[in-house]
Amino acid sequence: MTATTSLHPLDDALALTPGAADIFTGRTTAPYWNMVGPFGGITAATLLQAVMQHPARLGEPLSMTVNYAGAIAEGAFEVQATPLRTNRSTQHWSITLRQIGKDGAPQVMTSATAVTAARRDTWSATDLPMPRVPAPEACAQVEQAIAVQWVNRYAMRPVTGMPPARWDGAEGDSLSQLWVRDTPGRTLDFPALAALCDVFYPRVWRRRALQVPAGTVSMTAYFHAGSELLAQTGAGWLLAQARGQEFRNGFFDQTAQLWNAAGQMLATSHQIVYYKE
Amino acid sequence: MTATTSLHPLDDALALTPGAADIFTGRTTAPYWNMVGPFGGITAATLLQAVMQHPARLGEPLSMTVNYAGAIAEGAFEVQATPLRTNRSTQHWSITLRQIGKDGAPQVMTSATAVTAARRDTWSATDLPMPRVPAPEACAQVEQAIAVQWVNRYAMRPVTGMPPARWDGAEGDSLSQLWVRDTPGRTLDFPALAALCDVFYPRVWRRRALQVPAGTVSMTAYFHAGSELLAQTGAGWLLAQARGQEFRNGFFDQTAQLWNAAGQMLATSHQIVYYKE
Repeated sequence: MTATTSLHPLDDALALTPGAADIFTGRTTAPYWNMVGPFGGITAATLLQAVMQHPARLGEPLSMTVNYAGAIAEGAFEVQATPLRTNRSTQHWSITLRQIGKDGAPQVMTSATAVTAARRDTWSATDLPMPRVPAPEACAQVEQAIAVQWVNRYAMRPVTGMPPARWDGAEGDSLSQLWVRDTPGRTLDFPALAALCDVFYPRVWRRRALQVPAGTVSMTAYFHAGSELLAQTGAGWLLAQARGQEFRNGFFDQTAQLWNAAGQMLATSHQIVYYKE
Repeated sequence: MTATTSLHPLDDALALTPGAADIFTGRTTAPYWNMVGPFGGITAATLLQAVMQHPARLGEPLSMTVNYAGAIAEGAFEVQATPLRTNRSTQHWSITLRQIGKDGAPQVMTSATAVTAARRDTWSATDLPMPRVPAPEACAQVEQAIAVQWVNRYAMRPVTGMPPARWDGAEGDSLSQLWVRDTPGRTLDFPALAALCDVFYPRVWRRRALQVPAGTVSMTAYFHAGSELLAQTGAGWLLAQARGQEFRNGFFDQTAQLWNAAGQMLATSHQIVYYKE
């Protein structure tokens, strides 16, 4: 076995080479391929990885918004991560991913902003406790219903809201809850958590029981965990929950939460998604 | 009465002068002042206004994320709104607000991204109907509990979750619902709706009944209404609802929804907020 084959597929996908100031180069990898480009979660993780590797970074990720401007092509890309402003306890980032277009000029494929921050011990509480659900050990692992590569990078044990067994247009709700983790197992870090925020299949598929074309336009993640809690969570199961809010004129939004198995909120996330028809 | 005094305070605050490519100049106004800078909602509205006025704009606002990097000082500022990428039906924007710092160099005070899009008639539905609450006519207008200028720019009729009557540290929930509209009345448009997404007092104040220092770090708004629905809504009441999710180590997040009085969802919003202690 060579060093390359023993690398976790997530670490392989996140491999970035620092270049000129604020610039990192990377490339897409087959294990995280979606239908017409990489899994949106891996793109978010890659942009955050550039921030994590930036020598000027202060603190840990607090929030991130990723705007998916165009389908990333197979191959090389360049990430630019620029600290726009550094305060005493927060730092504001602008991030773009570019590829060389057909005309030979670099084109923005993804744009993002992120805030990193120094966390302090304060009064803490939740207003959204983890729902009572069966433990991961009591839930069955399922065969992936959707034939794309990236879903095989996650072990998933649905609690409720699996993809409809029949695409018959019978309308239902848009709630999904599942236990999920990277496979092979890997200790959780911020890029991995960012990717997991996008692990849900499109809510419109569940709501309508119709597999209409759909794609994320913009995703925001708020990180409630610090690196210490991520390390404690390790390679354990996360409970991931997503629900649609409004579906209107070609776009719907989704809210999502991710807890570790001990019931600690790790991240909350939202996205707005294009759908057809 | 001169033309100036008859201008609505929101239109006055949103007045921008186009300069070089992608550049607009504006200035803060007293009626929207908060404690140590302008109301965050007016800043969001101003950044969106630059996109609305940009000659290259395609479609209408779909999503917007605003990152509050520093307190904007009283006086002039420059907004740069750049279309990063234009697709067939979506357009991706990067927006920054700068002021001249003490050292004479321009400094980023606010950064943002936005997506504008062409909306199409499609299957539509909601998974989050407007809660059943008393009509605005049945709710009493209240004196503003918080002594800052901008709150006087809104008529507010709380349904539930007013600021605590006593700041006694008695912990409660973090839900607020209120009927709200611009005052004087003004037909709703996208900048006004963006501002309204930030109309809630900090959830941590309600959750803890303690008025600890707090400030929004990043806010995202998803617009579910097109301009036609905004025009129909006119100067009518909106039901605005906000709830905290997780309060941890100096930051909490909030989800919010805004419906018109007919029960149509106009926008959903999220923010992550710094708090002290």
